[in-house]
Amino acid sequence: MAQDDKRASVGIGLIGSGFMGRCHANAFRSVAGLFDVPLEPRLNVLADASDELAAQAAQALGFVRGTGSWQELVADEAVDIVAITAPNVLHAPIAHAAIAAGKTVYCEKPLSTTAAIALEMTEAAEAASVVTLVGFNFLRNPMIKLAREIIASGEIGEVTGFRGRHAENYMANSEVAHSFRTDPQGGGALADIGSHIISMARYLLGPIAEVQADCRTIHATRPVAPGASERAPVEVDDMTHALLRFENGVSGSLEANWAATARTMDLSWEITGTKGALGFSQEQMNELLLWSATPGRSGYTRIEAGPAHPPYGAFCPAPGHHLGFNDLKVIEVAELLSAHAGGPACGPDFREAYEVQRAVEAMQQSHADRRWITL
Amino acid sequence: MAQDDKRASVGIGLIGSGFMGRCHANAFRSVAGLFDVPLEPRLNVLADASDELAAQAAQALGFVRGTGSWQELVADEAVDIVAITAPNVLHAPIAHAAIAAGKTVYCEKPLSTTAAIALEMTEAAEAASVVTLVGFNFLRNPMIKLAREIIASGEIGEVTGFRGRHAENYMANSEVAHSFRTDPQGGGALADIGSHIISMARYLLGPIAEVQADCRTIHATRPVAPGASERAPVEVDDMTHALLRFENGVSGSLEANWAATARTMDLSWEITGTKGALGFSQEQMNELLLWSATPGRSGYTRIEAGPAHPPYGAFCPAPGHHLGFNDLKVIEVAELLSAHAGGPACGPDFREAYEVQRAVEAMQQSHADRRWITL
Amino acid sequence: MAQDDKRASVGIGLIGSGFMGRCHANAFRSVAGLFDVPLEPRLNVLADASDELAAQAAQALGFVRGTGSWQELVADEAVDIVAITAPNVLHAPIAHAAIAAGKTVYCEKPLSTTAAIALEMTEAAEAASVVTLVGFNFLRNPMIKLAREIIASGEIGEVTGFRGRHAENYMANSEVAHSFRTDPQGGGALADIGSHIISMARYLLGPIAEVQADCRTIHATRPVAPGASERAPVEVDDMTHALLRFENGVSGSLEANWAATARTMDLSWEITGTKGALGFSQEQMNELLLWSATPGRSGYTRIEAGPAHPPYGAFCPAPGHHLGFNDLKVIEVAELLSAHAGGPACGPDFREAYEVQRAVEAMQQSHADRRWITL
Amino acid sequence: MAQDDKRASVGIGLIGSGFMGRCHANAFRSVAGLFDVPLEPRLNVLADASDELAAQAAQALGFVRGTGSWQELVADEAVDIVAITAPNVLHAPIAHAAIAAGKTVYCEKPLSTTAAIALEMTEAAEAASVVTLVGFNFLRNPMIKLAREIIASGEIGEVTGFRGRHAENYMANSEVAHSFRTDPQGGGALADIGSHIISMARYLLGPIAEVQADCRTIHATRPVAPGASERAPVEVDDMTHALLRFENGVSGSLEANWAATARTMDLSWEITGTKGALGFSQEQMNELLLWSATPGRSGYTRIEAGPAHPPYGAFCPAPGHHLGFNDLKVIEVAELLSAHAGGPACGPDFREAYEVQRAVEAMQQSHADRRWITL
Repeated sequence: MAQDDKRASVGIGLIGSGFMGRCHANAFRSVAGLFDVPLEPRLNVLADASDELAAQAAQALGFVRGTGSWQELVADEAVDIVAITAPNVLHAPIAHAAIAAGKTVYCEKPLSTTAAIALEMTEAAEAASVVTLVGFNFLRNPMIKLAREIIASGEIGEVTGFRGRHAENYMANSEVAHSFRTDPQGGGALADIGSHIISMARYLLGPIAEVQADCRTIHATRPVAPGASERAPVEVDDMTHALLRFENGVSGSLEANWAATARTMDLSWEITGTKGALGFSQEQMNELLLWSATPGRSGYTRIEAGPAHPPYGAFCPAPGHHLGFNDLKVIEVAELLSAHAGGPACGPDFREAYEVQRAVEAMQQSHADRRWITL
Repeated sequence: MAQDDKRASVGIGLIGSGFMGRCHANAFRSVAGLFDVPLEPRLNVLADASDELAAQAAQALGFVRGTGSWQELVADEAVDIVAITAPNVLHAPIAHAAIAAGKTVYCEKPLSTTAAIALEMTEAAEAASVVTLVGFNFLRNPMIKLAREIIASGEIGEVTGFRGRHAENYMANSEVAHSFRTDPQGGGALADIGSHIISMARYLLGPIAEVQADCRTIHATRPVAPGASERAPVEVDDMTHALLRFENGVSGSLEANWAATARTMDLSWEITGTKGALGFSQEQMNELLLWSATPGRSGYTRIEAGPAHPPYGAFCPAPGHHLGFNDLKVIEVAELLSAHAGGPACGPDFREAYEVQRAVEAMQQSHADRRWITL
Repeated sequence: MAQDDKRASVGIGLIGSGFMGRCHANAFRSVAGLFDVPLEPRLNVLADASDELAAQAAQALGFVRGTGSWQELVADEAVDIVAITAPNVLHAPIAHAAIAAGKTVYCEKPLSTTAAIALEMTEAAEAASVVTLVGFNFLRNPMIKLAREIIASGEIGEVTGFRGRHAENYMANSEVAHSFRTDPQGGGALADIGSHIISMARYLLGPIAEVQADCRTIHATRPVAPGASERAPVEVDDMTHALLRFENGVSGSLEANWAATARTMDLSWEITGTKGALGFSQEQMNELLLWSATPGRSGYTRIEAGPAHPPYGAFCPAPGHHLGFNDLKVIEVAELLSAHAGGPACGPDFREAYEVQRAVEAMQQSHADRRWITL
Repeated sequence: MAQDDKRASVGIGLIGSGFMGRCHANAFRSVAGLFDVPLEPRLNVLADASDELAAQAAQALGFVRGTGSWQELVADEAVDIVAITAPNVLHAPIAHAAIAAGKTVYCEKPLSTTAAIALEMTEAAEAASVVTLVGFNFLRNPMIKLAREIIASGEIGEVTGFRGRHAENYMANSEVAHSFRTDPQGGGALADIGSHIISMARYLLGPIAEVQADCRTIHATRPVAPGASERAPVEVDDMTHALLRFENGVSGSLEANWAATARTMDLSWEITGTKGALGFSQEQMNELLLWSATPGRSGYTRIEAGPAHPPYGAFCPAPGHHLGFNDLKVIEVAELLSAHAGGPACGPDFREAYEVQRAVEAMQQSHADRRWITL
């Protein structure tokens, strides 16, 4: 017998087919075979810059059809969830249209190019009571969930210090050209990847109260386009170091750096508490370090991900079989489908993404003003 | 426009829906969105122990229909590739039937319960010229492919030594009950996971010429079934240490251990050459250690997986975004589809799997006889 | 024949016999058997808080005699080098006396309780042209010397970023009592161990131009004495995070933390350059991480200390045999003896120690004023 | 007042001034300043190959006098402890002379060139009731003592498996010339460094009952002397892999390899028990890995050496300040002085060293015979 009539389905409309678009598509394809989701995703429409590109991408990624018009996609009755992986500048108009159409909106980070626009999007979504989710996928890691539980339980005592970083090297070379990444509107290392460590810090420790950052542009100019000999000034940061104080009194620092020559994924932190501590690096994403005091036996314990750490078990019943980056997106989509079907809000929603963006802008402002900024 | 007419499809029949069955299903679902495969898999039939179980599994894993009869699945014209994740004892009859039907056979390891039966399967497949592939998925890791290339290129000089291990802890507890794993016919740590490090050693260094092993049963008895108070003797090894000599003159050792209390996935090795060395552990599956001599700068370099190491780029265009265990299966399936469509043989085929099994049995024999065995 | 007449000797006077006093004594005892030093140290006088304590310590540490008067020690003609491991508040009077007596002064860090006093000491020493050395022993590590050479050579390109830390847990417990460490005059985590990472940053990257720090007292009160039930407020920092800009344009951050529950010796840093990067942690003090770009082979190389990294070879002719903390002090003393005998200045001298202290105070001021401070 | 009359002294006679001779001298110089030893060592006589060499070495290492005659040294009444770091072939005659003179004998490993000679030395020492100690200094590591205590206490349950290795690269190059190391009498990787992992295995797990080894000569010839163009065959192993069974039923494997290109000090092991496990590598000699089961928190805990692990505290009162290789020798000498003064035997004595040598020879024999050997 066919399975089709067994599980209700939900129509997916995906806008964009780059790195993140492919990642979304894969997650929607995979999720129902791994998670007991309430709804089976149907990959109905893919929108891209033109009909032709969209058709090619639809075929490659397994969507029923493609379209060069995201407006058409949003309006399509076969689309229940609008997944936005388009350029950042398009996030707001697409999201507003999708919200107006009452659809669930699943948007890649950053939510928008400015916090002000992000706030408008947030308020629109809240007014319309639509489900929103922003793709801070690193939060989906079972080890990050475990870290949050450990902190919340008091197992490491009262938290006293935070030291975080997101460092990669994709812009380390001065010959990497200008792109949306270096657009003063929403660009720079702090906005692009600093937002990940900010979102993770907030997830683990709560709101940030005050910041003081130091932003630096390492490469003064870059080619105006890939391979171009003409160069234009860079107006965004390549590297930012920041001091931060959380509302709960914890203080610490973070670094955002896309010119960290030796690093490909140093999204890492150490959180110190009065009784213990936690350490994590995305470079060993299947591990969490936990320190607890035992006379003569103290030290960091390297906890390996396993079925004891949900939802790892959805992927594999045995420990030691690593999750990968794409699996984090599958978890994200599983939680999205649950929320879409009326389950608990899964976050980070638009408001949370707005708060992250607000922290980014506060850091930028603190740099410009050379002073502490209270959020 | 719909994509369906664009890419030819291939019908999949999957037998079994346990850990590995789910893993196969996920790979078949995902592969076409990640790899530019020549054929789009259609998840047509899933067979399990009963019609009911099969129907449930078919729905959960996204297959069109289920059946309690693997014979029916094999005979179904909608099935082009027969994927076998059934109990080991069924591998041979299913494979023979699929071979007789001229179908591509994709079988989980071990190929069979004895090398003799595996040889029969191999000869049947070769006589029928069907494509075969056995699921030694750890070989699909881009870092393992890189290691093989480095060795083949002479970059580390002439290889002199090998030290390997596959250690996990899933049978460490004496209360884990008897199962197919402890069946003297094909069971034991050496057969179950030692086969992985043997296959990897062969993949990297070629055939093994001589072995001398020491097998040990750590827990003399186990419950006859989960939760049972009745116990029965264990007749297979929990841990085996072996000396080995390769045909190319390299000598070394390996360990297979499913009672390695502290280990969940220590599939690891060091390969020493006259000019350099390589190190790997599945616990850090996205890394390869490469040692090369530079005065005052010598040391192991920790190479992180990235797009420079195919087919990593199929999953992600940026380095540092880890692959996970399930991704290895997707790579395996991509290579299977290519071979099925007439592309190059991807291996390990039935003959290679037979050779692995022969090495396992030679080790067991060497233990029983307390002497070196020449393969 | 006796050796005594072969090598000229130098008389040592050591003030203090605590942790660092013992460490000095050991270094002076050992150095001539390991290094080809120009002068053989004679452990002539040890001064401590009383004649009795001094006599006991002299015997335990191998000094000819003890005295309760550091003034007497300084005045003793048998003392050529005055080694100061007394409480910080005594550094200045002892140093001034020793300088006045024209003796070489070897002082533990911090040089004094305030930068102003440290500057007076510095000017006195420079006016008298005596040799001075301050015990920032972590700089003596062969791997730190190697790092400095690599940076100076341009091997990692132009340096762009610094991220440093010195974190330990010796004050993590709120029941650790007040002591000189918590004296507002010269105390606190930043002064006590932050000075180490500041000195190392200066050693590797040069002067610091601007700072902005955030200091935090984690435990508001501590017992007034060990075991006391009475408590008094803590007026120094337990943890400081700071932004810093170097004169050469490099920017970065550092943390000083003596309440870092999980850390016993996280004196660590990463230095990023446009072509490569370096990483170090005192937790693996016999290693230096060096990143350099090679297509498909990029990664951190873990360089192990060996005879290729002077003066490792003074301790052992073979690589892989670790140096320990006390060995760093032996290197320091070997360089001190060379400088005392007219060899090249070895640093850090009083002026350099003053500069470190000035940076500490600038950070404290920046915290108090909540603004950037230019040094 | 002078200290000389306070502590009784013991006269040291050191034979040899190479790597190990210097290491001994340093330990004898340092020990009384670090440990509360009952006797203060007096570095009285150093013997070397000639009077001239001995005089030079005596001066360099701080001995009162030198002599070209070890016989004279042994006979000297000022010598209470005879420390032997001479070529292996001289160990026996020197030891017999020292035993005959009733002196404590402190001998570098290997005890002799053959087990038979080592047994004679052992029996002579036991008959004369002299204190003996053989320099397996890696056993002195506080973390190794901790491991032994953990095992003995049952903390990791019943031990089931052992996997050990000592791998270095000092003979990896085929141009390293013949020396005592390649002398068939007592030479080879197994004898030279395999003895370390054997002694450590015995220290932790007790006697070895049965062995089966595979020895390999990687470089068939080597220069007859450094720089010589003439080459001679190599008759000893460069690399040995061995299976072993302990008397207590534990089974496992070890590797000895002096041609391990990438390794400078991989003296490492994992010991698995039914409840936990331990891991160690001399490459991180200040750490011990301990695995213990805690639901959702299981993993290896990296215990850092500190004052909780005697005798670490003799070197430093704070954790995290690493011990180095030379410190292990200081601990060894402290224990020797205690035993010499009538304290508890410290081991490994001559008999233990003989047992190690017997295990080495059994492994060599098992290789030659291609069979298991029962010790």
